[in-house]
Amino acid sequence: MNVSVPEAKLQALASGALERLGLPAEDAALAARVLVLGDLFGISTHGVSRVESYGERIRIGGIKARADVRVERIAPAMAKVDGDNGVGPLVGMRSLHAAMELARESGIGIAFARNSNHFGPVGPYSYLAAEAGFASVIGSNASTTIAPTGGKEARLGNSPVAFAVPNPGGAPFILDMALSVVARAKIRDAAKAGKSIPDTWATDAQGNATTDPKAALEGFLLPIGGHKGYGLALFVDLFAGLLSNAAYLTHVNSWSESPEKPGNLGHFFCLIDVMRLGSESWLEERMQDFRSILHATPPADPQRPVLVPGEIELAHLERQRRDGISLDAAVLERLQTLAR
Amino acid sequence: MNVSVPEAKLQALASGALERLGLPAEDAALAARVLVLGDLFGISTHGVSRVESYGERIRIGGIKARADVRVERIAPAMAKVDGDNGVGPLVGMRSLHAAMELARESGIGIAFARNSNHFGPVGPYSYLAAEAGFASVIGSNASTTIAPTGGKEARLGNSPVAFAVPNPGGAPFILDMALSVVARAKIRDAAKAGKSIPDTWATDAQGNATTDPKAALEGFLLPIGGHKGYGLALFVDLFAGLLSNAAYLTHVNSWSESPEKPGNLGHFFCLIDVMRLGSESWLEERMQDFRSILHATPPADPQRPVLVPGEIELAHLERQRRDGISLDAAVLERLQTLAR
Repeated sequence: MNVSVPEAKLQALASGALERLGLPAEDAALAARVLVLGDLFGISTHGVSRVESYGERIRIGGIKARADVRVERIAPAMAKVDGDNGVGPLVGMRSLHAAMELARESGIGIAFARNSNHFGPVGPYSYLAAEAGFASVIGSNASTTIAPTGGKEARLGNSPVAFAVPNPGGAPFILDMALSVVARAKIRDAAKAGKSIPDTWATDAQGNATTDPKAALEGFLLPIGGHKGYGLALFVDLFAGLLSNAAYLTHVNSWSESPEKPGNLGHFFCLIDVMRLGSESWLEERMQDFRSILHATPPADPQRPVLVPGEIELAHLERQRRDGISLDAAVLERLQTLAR
Repeated sequence: MNVSVPEAKLQALASGALERLGLPAEDAALAARVLVLGDLFGISTHGVSRVESYGERIRIGGIKARADVRVERIAPAMAKVDGDNGVGPLVGMRSLHAAMELARESGIGIAFARNSNHFGPVGPYSYLAAEAGFASVIGSNASTTIAPTGGKEARLGNSPVAFAVPNPGGAPFILDMALSVVARAKIRDAAKAGKSIPDTWATDAQGNATTDPKAALEGFLLPIGGHKGYGLALFVDLFAGLLSNAAYLTHVNSWSESPEKPGNLGHFFCLIDVMRLGSESWLEERMQDFRSILHATPPADPQRPVLVPGEIELAHLERQRRDGISLDAAVLERLQTLAR
């Protein structure tokens, strides 16, 4: 059962819960902001429901509650961030702010974070960047779930990455995605329903494409476009993990298998100050025209108009800011318990 | 029939042909460099064979031979490049060099180019950046061939984009790709062979997925991963076209339909000086380890070991630098005629 919670209340609750878990108030508020935005976007799997699992890892020493996140500027437009094994969304927000400062000064800036953990959904970072006038490419690596194209062993993560461009007069463009064709949950659903799956979704344990969801659950998710999605996932890991001096590929510790060990995940935040390129009205006009051209495409199915990336999430955001955030009642209850 | 041509000879020929078409010697050499690298990589569709079509467009005024390419620095780490409707690879090389300078100074730098044309293959730019110590994200927009997800009219281009990371001790990582599942040529081949195609390759003219290659040739290429590839193609166009103040989406002039009109294509070159992040040996060790982890993946088919993006192209490069570049004899002859 879902209940409706006003944004401010959920922010206070999530922030309070993180404080109870040992985070300083300011850090708790920053981290909560990312997760609440996740819920606002309708990505409840990456929203405040995560606070509980962060808490479990803090309790067994897998994540540090009072992390000393350090930002080191290593070039005029480049910073390295040491997350000190803090909660991911805190490290993420600090890195985002560092990249904003650099980009404001130089037109473009990049922050590379290491010693971090799961940083929540990517979209909220892109959204905050866009609201502040920055285009962005933001990514994180993840523990291994995907086999390289032609391989039969998981060696890379289903790394999330987002590309965004602000729109001073309306909805920004936000493409937030992982590089698998579908999420594992969709394969689980098919298995439960006893349905077959397209052979482009996953391989069996031997690395061969399969239409059997049960075999797929023993195997590996397939990236979009075969070797292209495999390459894109590697790009994200190279920027987020290898260049940041974090772990990469099989060096990334699995949260589920060893929750007591630091993950040493890495992220990158590349921001561009688009206001250097032209006036607000110049950008607004072009962004609105860009959207109009896409929206005006004759649809294959008249009932389903063409969409622009981010549109669904931003509609959720607008509606839930107005009417309250739809949250699983059990998640809310556990959050209230944690915050007490 | 293919013949073998030494790299230096092909460079001189392509450069000479471009000079005959009216380009200043220095500009001709720069543009030729990109195309010859395309052939070295084994991407002959985007190699020196393009000189002929550039020439046709120069003759009818669609491209300017003596273009005044201007680089304007608009922020410490950001430049705008006006290509003055010059040949694409010339504008590309000038933009690449501008981005290198910015990144050398600030750690990261970005150049946005407008008033350009087809800039050749992307991989060579990434390769030159990697050889000079820069990681890169480079892209260009293109005239419309892809329908938005759910649409039945081409509104975006099959934009090429490349992601690369240097490796001081060996092969760099270079992922150079377009965002369609396959190139149109593969569908043409299937049509000729009377074979059906997977329903993930293209739609018919009504925007519905099809297995009939003839219907597909009347329709639109499908991007990788459905809405994900659609979104990625939009990201490339937003950065390359919209932010650069070039044309975008349906505003991009079609080379084949109106060769006499300027294309006003746009590109972006985002470069990162990785030497700011650690020592050469630090990077080399990590890059070699990264490759080893992938290469050591047990393959699904023992005859087909797992590859890393760029590996095939770089093997072509090495072999052809040693043994000469394999070139269609007819292409060579036309080039010799042009260069005379």
